[in-house]
Amino acid sequence: MTVRVGVLGATGAVGQRCIQLLDGHSEFELAAVTASESSAGRSYRDAAKWRVDSPIPDSVEDLTVRATDPAEVPDDVDLLFSSLPSGVAAEVEPKFAEAGYVLSSNSSNDRMAEDVPLVIPEINPGHLDLLEVQRDERDWDGAVLKNPNCSTITMVPTLAALRQFGLERVHVSTLQAVSGAGYSGVSSMEIIDNVIPHIGGEEEKMETESRKLLGTFDGAELQNHDVEVSASCNRVPTIDGHLENVWAEMEEDVTTEQVEDALRAVESLDLPSSPDQLIEVFDDPMRPQPRLDRTLGDGMAIAAGGVQETPAGVQYNCLAHNTIRGAAGAAVLNGELLASEGWL
Amino acid sequence: MTVRVGVLGATGAVGQRCIQLLDGHSEFELAAVTASESSAGRSYRDAAKWRVDSPIPDSVEDLTVRATDPAEVPDDVDLLFSSLPSGVAAEVEPKFAEAGYVLSSNSSNDRMAEDVPLVIPEINPGHLDLLEVQRDERDWDGAVLKNPNCSTITMVPTLAALRQFGLERVHVSTLQAVSGAGYSGVSSMEIIDNVIPHIGGEEEKMETESRKLLGTFDGAELQNHDVEVSASCNRVPTIDGHLENVWAEMEEDVTTEQVEDALRAVESLDLPSSPDQLIEVFDDPMRPQPRLDRTLGDGMAIAAGGVQETPAGVQYNCLAHNTIRGAAGAAVLNGELLASEGWL
Amino acid sequence: MTVRVGVLGATGAVGQRCIQLLDGHSEFELAAVTASESSAGRSYRDAAKWRVDSPIPDSVEDLTVRATDPAEVPDDVDLLFSSLPSGVAAEVEPKFAEAGYVLSSNSSNDRMAEDVPLVIPEINPGHLDLLEVQRDERDWDGAVLKNPNCSTITMVPTLAALRQFGLERVHVSTLQAVSGAGYSGVSSMEIIDNVIPHIGGEEEKMETESRKLLGTFDGAELQNHDVEVSASCNRVPTIDGHLENVWAEMEEDVTTEQVEDALRAVESLDLPSSPDQLIEVFDDPMRPQPRLDRTLGDGMAIAAGGVQETPAGVQYNCLAHNTIRGAAGAAVLNGELLASEGWL
Amino acid sequence: MTVRVGVLGATGAVGQRCIQLLDGHSEFELAAVTASESSAGRSYRDAAKWRVDSPIPDSVEDLTVRATDPAEVPDDVDLLFSSLPSGVAAEVEPKFAEAGYVLSSNSSNDRMAEDVPLVIPEINPGHLDLLEVQRDERDWDGAVLKNPNCSTITMVPTLAALRQFGLERVHVSTLQAVSGAGYSGVSSMEIIDNVIPHIGGEEEKMETESRKLLGTFDGAELQNHDVEVSASCNRVPTIDGHLENVWAEMEEDVTTEQVEDALRAVESLDLPSSPDQLIEVFDDPMRPQPRLDRTLGDGMAIAAGGVQETPAGVQYNCLAHNTIRGAAGAAVLNGELLASEGWL
Repeated sequence: MTVRVGVLGATGAVGQRCIQLLDGHSEFELAAVTASESSAGRSYRDAAKWRVDSPIPDSVEDLTVRATDPAEVPDDVDLLFSSLPSGVAAEVEPKFAEAGYVLSSNSSNDRMAEDVPLVIPEINPGHLDLLEVQRDERDWDGAVLKNPNCSTITMVPTLAALRQFGLERVHVSTLQAVSGAGYSGVSSMEIIDNVIPHIGGEEEKMETESRKLLGTFDGAELQNHDVEVSASCNRVPTIDGHLENVWAEMEEDVTTEQVEDALRAVESLDLPSSPDQLIEVFDDPMRPQPRLDRTLGDGMAIAAGGVQETPAGVQYNCLAHNTIRGAAGAAVLNGELLASEGWL
Repeated sequence: MTVRVGVLGATGAVGQRCIQLLDGHSEFELAAVTASESSAGRSYRDAAKWRVDSPIPDSVEDLTVRATDPAEVPDDVDLLFSSLPSGVAAEVEPKFAEAGYVLSSNSSNDRMAEDVPLVIPEINPGHLDLLEVQRDERDWDGAVLKNPNCSTITMVPTLAALRQFGLERVHVSTLQAVSGAGYSGVSSMEIIDNVIPHIGGEEEKMETESRKLLGTFDGAELQNHDVEVSASCNRVPTIDGHLENVWAEMEEDVTTEQVEDALRAVESLDLPSSPDQLIEVFDDPMRPQPRLDRTLGDGMAIAAGGVQETPAGVQYNCLAHNTIRGAAGAAVLNGELLASEGWL
Repeated sequence: MTVRVGVLGATGAVGQRCIQLLDGHSEFELAAVTASESSAGRSYRDAAKWRVDSPIPDSVEDLTVRATDPAEVPDDVDLLFSSLPSGVAAEVEPKFAEAGYVLSSNSSNDRMAEDVPLVIPEINPGHLDLLEVQRDERDWDGAVLKNPNCSTITMVPTLAALRQFGLERVHVSTLQAVSGAGYSGVSSMEIIDNVIPHIGGEEEKMETESRKLLGTFDGAELQNHDVEVSASCNRVPTIDGHLENVWAEMEEDVTTEQVEDALRAVESLDLPSSPDQLIEVFDDPMRPQPRLDRTLGDGMAIAAGGVQETPAGVQYNCLAHNTIRGAAGAAVLNGELLASEGWL
Repeated sequence: MTVRVGVLGATGAVGQRCIQLLDGHSEFELAAVTASESSAGRSYRDAAKWRVDSPIPDSVEDLTVRATDPAEVPDDVDLLFSSLPSGVAAEVEPKFAEAGYVLSSNSSNDRMAEDVPLVIPEINPGHLDLLEVQRDERDWDGAVLKNPNCSTITMVPTLAALRQFGLERVHVSTLQAVSGAGYSGVSSMEIIDNVIPHIGGEEEKMETESRKLLGTFDGAELQNHDVEVSASCNRVPTIDGHLENVWAEMEEDVTTEQVEDALRAVESLDLPSSPDQLIEVFDDPMRPQPRLDRTLGDGMAIAAGGVQETPAGVQYNCLAHNTIRGAAGAAVLNGELLASEGWL
C-alpha cells in the first residue's frame, strides 16, 4: 500500500535531496511539492534550480509547485516532509498539523519542545509515543516529528553505543561540509584555503539535542540523559559529509575492542531506507574520510574509525552524509518509521 | 656584528621558507646551503624548484649547493639551520655538532632526547642551558637545539598561559594545512573535497612534546610537566596555517576573561623575528581563520579566539602559520636566541 | 556467453576504476588481476590501496594478484584491459599480444603507431579492421587496441559531429581534473587555490590523436583528418571531469542550432556500457559543470553546452568523466566492441 | 604635495582592497569613505566586515562612514575611487562629477560610453584627453575615468605588445578567481571540486573593452582597434588571480622569441604603484600560476609564459591579480595618472 506524500520547501537544497531520495521509493509516492509564494503555480522544473548530482526525476519535473499552505495540499496526502527555513516552519508547521497532516520535519524550530519527539529511528524509536502527548496538548489531528541537526545525528548513534558503559562526558570537534549551510550559506571567499572555527548555534544544538535523544520516555514525560557534551564546530572546504572527532568519558574503563564491538552492535532497522549496517567501523585510522565514505549505505550509514583509549576514556572519529543521513534521509527514515508504526 | 649561517636541506619546503626568512635578516648572513649529493655542485637556483610565493632572493640564487657534510661547510659559518628529513638528520646532525657547529634544527629526530633542549623562545628559554649537559655528555664543541613540531608550537604558548591555573588535562583537535607534510606529502586526490582524520605520529608528538616544553629545568635535569594531552589530528584542504580546537581542564575555575587576559599576557621577546604581540586574542568567535590570520606578526604570532567556559574548564581555538612560526621561523627564532644568549 | 577478462596494472587508479566498472558486468567476468612484482602473490585487497568511492567488490578482494607476465595469466582469459604505466606497457603489451591475448589498452604508448587502431566506438569503429594489418605485420595471434587520451576523448565526439560542415581548425582550452594524473600525480601544494597552465605532452596528444581518430581507413591504410588542432591544457582543482572550451572553424557557415542538432545526432551504440545519449546538450550556458554533470550516463556520456556563433565559426564547451569515459570506461567499451565484432 | 582622496563604496571587497593599497601611499591621503545609507554614521571598523589578509589600517578604522552623496564629501577631497555596484554607480557618479569631483572608477557602467576614457596607464594614457570632450559634452567640472574589467586588464597589455605585428584575431579562455565576483558572488557549493564555464556579460566585456583600449584617439574621437576577440570565461576554485590562455593571429608570421621580446618591452611607468617590470615572461611553461605569481610587483605586474607558435599564430598564457591590478590597484594607478597629468 502506497502512502501519498508531499515535500514542504521542495526547491531548497534539502528539499531537492528529499525529492531525489523519494524517486522510486517503494512505499511513498510524491504527490505534492510546495515552495514560497513566488514559485507557486510554476512547474517544479522551472521553480527549482536543480543542483543535485543526478538528473531531476521525470515524475517530478512537471509537478506544479503549490504555496506552502494547508489549503493548497490535497487531502489524500498523508505525510509531509518539511525542510522549510526554521522561521517559516515555526509558523506553518502547526497549521498543517492542525489540519490533520503528519509532518516529518528537518527544520530546527521546536526540536527541544517538551511535546515534540526528536527521533533517530535506530536510537530512540520509543520517543514516537510522545506524539500522543502532543496531540492531547495541542488538540491536533496531525502531528509533528523532528529529526535532529546533522552534526548531532552523526555522533549520537555512537554515543548510544557507549551508554551501557556509563557515559558521562563528551568533547567533540566537528569538521562540517559546506552543504550543511544550504546552497548559498558559505561563500567561496570564506572557505577556499580556509576553515571557519565557529558555526552559530551549532554547538548548543549538539549539546542539548544529544541529551534529549539519549533520554528516556516513560509514556508521560521525557527525561534527558545527563551526559555533558562540549562541542567545537568548524566549517571546512568539503561539499558533503560531516567528520567528527569524539572523546568520551565513561564510568567504566573500556577497551578499544569493547568500543568497536559496541559500535558495530547498534542495530539497523528494516525500513526501506535503512542501511544494512548502521555503524561501519574501520580498522584503518586514516578512515573514515568524507569523500570516500559519505555514501556508505547510500548515505544512510555512519562510519567510525580511529578508536583508541585515552587517559580519560576513549577517542574516535565518526562521519555521516550530512544532507542524506543528516537531513533529507533522516526525515524520510522518520517518515518510514511513522508509517510502519501506524501513525499515518 | 653579523653571524654567518647555513641551511642544511635548503631545497625542501622548510628550507626554502628558511631562506625566504633569512633574506635581509638584520643579524644573519646566509653563507652556505646544503642538499643531497645529487644537488651538490649546482647553483641553488637550479637545484631548488623554488615554490615560495615571493621571488628567490638574489643573494641566494647563485650560491653553489654543497653536500650535507661538515667537511663541505666553511669554518666561519657559526650557526646552521637544519630542515633535513629526520632519517638523514639523525645521522648527520651529530657529525656537525661534533665538528663544532651549533645547529638550530626543525627535524623531528631526538626532540625527546634527555640532553636535547626543545625550545620555544618565549616559553622555555631557560631550557637552553641543557646544552651544557649535552656538551658534557656527548663531548661536542657544537650543539643541537630543537624546535617542536608545528602542531605543538601552535598550542603550547596558550597552555603556558594556563599553567598558572593548575593545568591538568587537554583535549585538542587539529585542522592542519597540507604544507605541514612537505611539498609532495599530501596528494590532491587525497584532500580536495576531503579531510584525513589521522596524521601518523602527530598525536603522540603533541602529547609528549607539550609536557617537555612546559617542564622545568633545574640546571641538571629536565622535569616534564604532568599535563595530560589527548590529541586528534586532521589534515584539511588549506595551504598554510594550523587551526586547533582546545579544551583545557585546570585545578582552578577560571572565567573567559581570565583566560583571555592570560593569553594576551604571554610576553614576546626582543629578537629580530619576534612579533610585537605573541598571542593575539580575537573577540569574534569566527576568528582566527587560517587564510585571514596566518600572517599575523609576519607569520610569527599566534592567534586565539572563541574562548568560552565549559562544564569542565575552558575551550578556545588557536592558530599559527605552520611553516613560519611552526617550522622555519621557529628555527630562525631559536637561532636568534642562541646568538643573543651567547651560545655561538 | 561470458568472456573471461583480466586487468593489467589493476592496483593503480585507472585499474581500480576498471575493476569497479567490471563489477556486475553482463558479459565480462573478471578472472585475473596483475600488478608489479612486489604485489604478486598478495590478495587484491592487500595489494591495492582501494580509493574508489564505492566499496571494493566482493568477487575481487580475494583474487590473488599476478605478475604482469603472459605466463602468469590463465589461457582461458580472452581479453585484457591494460592500464599500465606507458613505459611498462611498451615492454609487456607486445608480449601479451604475441602470446595470443587481445588487449584493450588505455596506456599511451603506441597510440600513434600506424598499425595500432585508436578507437572511440561511437566515432570510428571501422578502424578496428586495422587489427588485421597489425596481425599481419607483427605476426601476432592476439592484438592491441588503444583508446585515446582522456582530454582527446572529451572533445573528439563533438568534432566528429562538425566534420560534415568541413571542419578546418580547432582551438581548445582544457580545464582538467587532478585524477587524470593518477593518484599521486598532482600534489595538493601544487593545486589548492591554484591552476597549472601546462600538462606535459597533453597538448600534442590532443593535436595528433584527434587527426587519427577523425581519419578514414580504407582497409589498407589510415588517412588522418587534416583538421588543425591547437590546444592549451590546464590542471584545475577538481577531482574528476575534464571541461573543455572549444572553438571550431569550418568551411561552411553554421548556426548555433545546426551545431546543437549535430551534437545531439551523434549516435550511441548498443554495447553494455553505452550511454543512452552520447552527447547531451545543455541550453543553460552555465552547464556542463564537472561536479554536476560528470556522471551523466554513468560517466559514459559527454555533456556539451554554451554553443554560440563567433566571427570565425562556433564556440562551445564539452565535458566528460576523465577516468570513466576518458580511461577505464573507454577501455571497457572498446573491449565490448571487440567482443561484439568477433575479435576475441 | 598630498592629494586628499575618498573611496566610494568603501566597505565592499574592492573598496577594502583600495583602502589597503592607499595605506601609506606616498601621494594620497585617505580623507573620506562612503557606503550605503545603512552604514552611514558608523565607524569604518564597525561598518566594514574587514576580510583582507592584512589588518585594517589604523588611520582608517575610526573614520566615520558617509553616505554616498556629493553633499556628504568634503570639498577639499580632490579624487574619488569608486567601487560601487554598477547600478548605484550609474546613478551617483554623474552627480559627483557634476559637483566637481574627479572619479577614478572601477564600476562597469559607462565603460563603453563614447566620452568616457577607459584607461590602462601603460597602454593608452593618451585616452585621458577624452576627458576634455567629456567635460564639454556633459558640462562637468569634475570627470569620470574608468578602468576596464579585470579579465580584460590581464590580457590587453599583452595584446598591445602584439599590435606591431598586425593583430587580427584573438581567442581567449579565462580561468577566473572567485574574488572577481565579490565576497558573496560565488557560493562554495557552486565551486568546490568544480568549474563554472560561463560568467554573465564577461565575454562581451573582453571583446568590446579590448577594442576600445587598443584604439586610437585623435583628440576628437576614439577609433576602436578592429581586432576580433572571442572569449570563453570560466570560474575556477582559486581565491585571487585570473589566468588566461590566449591565441593571437597576426598579419605577420612571428616567432616565440619575437613575442617574448615584445612582451618584455612594454614599458612600465614611473607612478607610485607601477611595477618595475610590467610584463614578466617565464621560460618555464608551468608558469605563471595564480597562487605563486599573482603578487608579482605587489600585485601590479602581469605574468606571461608558455609562449609558442601555432599554425595560425602564437599562443601564450597571462595572469594578473584580479582585485589589485584588475580592480582596486587599477583604479589607484589611474588616480596616480590623473594626478601626474594635472587633471586634479
